[in-house]
Amino acid sequence: MFKKSILLVAGVTVAITMGAAVAHEASSPAINARQHVMQLYAFNLGTLGAMAKGDVDYNAAAASSAANNLALLSTLDQSAMWQGGSDNSADTTTRALPDLWQNFPDVGAKSAALAAAAAAMQDAAGQDLASLRVAMGALGGSCGACHKAYRAPEN
Amino acid sequence: MFKKSILLVAGVTVAITMGAAVAHEASSPAINARQHVMQLYAFNLGTLGAMAKGDVDYNAAAASSAANNLALLSTLDQSAMWQGGSDNSADTTTRALPDLWQNFPDVGAKSAALAAAAAAMQDAAGQDLASLRVAMGALGGSCGACHKAYRAPEN
Repeated sequence: MFKKSILLVAGVTVAITMGAAVAHEASSPAINARQHVMQLYAFNLGTLGAMAKGDVDYNAAAASSAANNLALLSTLDQSAMWQGGSDNSADTTTRALPDLWQNFPDVGAKSAALAAAAAAMQDAAGQDLASLRVAMGALGGSCGACHKAYRAPEN
Repeated sequence: MFKKSILLVAGVTVAITMGAAVAHEASSPAINARQHVMQLYAFNLGTLGAMAKGDVDYNAAAASSAANNLALLSTLDQSAMWQGGSDNSADTTTRALPDLWQNFPDVGAKSAALAAAAAAMQDAAGQDLASLRVAMGALGGSCGACHKAYRAPEN
C-alpha cells in the first residue's frame, strides 16, 4: 500500500511538472480557462505532493488549505470551458483528445471521482502525514485516469 | 444608476481585455497561481459582461453558472499565492505593488467585498438582465477597488 502510494505520488509530480512547463497562451478563452483550472489543481497538489514526498515538512494548516482549494475547484462548472471543436484535432494549443467529447458520461464519472477524492483529501490532509499520503494516491489516480483516457501525450 | 452600471461594466471589460493579454508565464508558482485565479475571474466575468453589454443574448443558466463559479473562486484560500517578496519590485512578471503586503487588513476587506459582490451576483444572475447589470456594477467596482490600490499600471 505504501509503495503504491509513493508510485502514484511520483506520477502526480510528473503531471505537475509537465503542467508547469506549459507556458503558451491557448488560442481560445475557453481552452485558456480550463488550463487555468488545471494549473490551480497543480499548484495545490504541489503543496500536498511536496509534503507527501518529504520535500517540505508536514504542515496541517497548509495541507488543509490546499485540500480545501482542490475540493472547491472540483466543484467549478466547467461546461463553458469544453466547447465542441476545442479538441487537439482542431487546435494545437490543447492536448484534449476528440474522444472526450464522445464520452461525456464517462468524463462526468471521472470528474465525480476527482471530486470524491478531493473531498477525501479534505478529511485526511489535516490529520497526519500518513493519512495525507493515502489520500494522495487516490487523488493522483483520479487525475491520471482522465489524462490517460482523454489527453494526448506531450510532444 | 443605469449610466453608472454601464460605466462600470465598461471598466470590467477593459480589465478583462488587459488580463487576456498577459501571455507570459510568471517566474514563480505562487505568482502563476494567483494569475490563474484572476484569469478564471476574467473568464466568468466575460460571460456576464457580454450579456450586460448586449453582445450575447441573456441566458439565465449560463449567467448563473458563471456567477456560481465566481462565488466559488472568491472563497479560495489564496494565502499561499501571495508570499512575501513576490511584489513587482522583486519580480517583473507581476504588477502587484509592495503596498499590498503593507495593508493586509485593507486587502482582506477588499477581498471580502468581492466575495459579497459575487454572492449578490449569484442571487441576481438567474433573475433577469436588469438584475445582472446592477450586480455587475458592484462586482466590477470590487475588482477595480483592489486593482486601483494595489496593481501597477500596465507598461
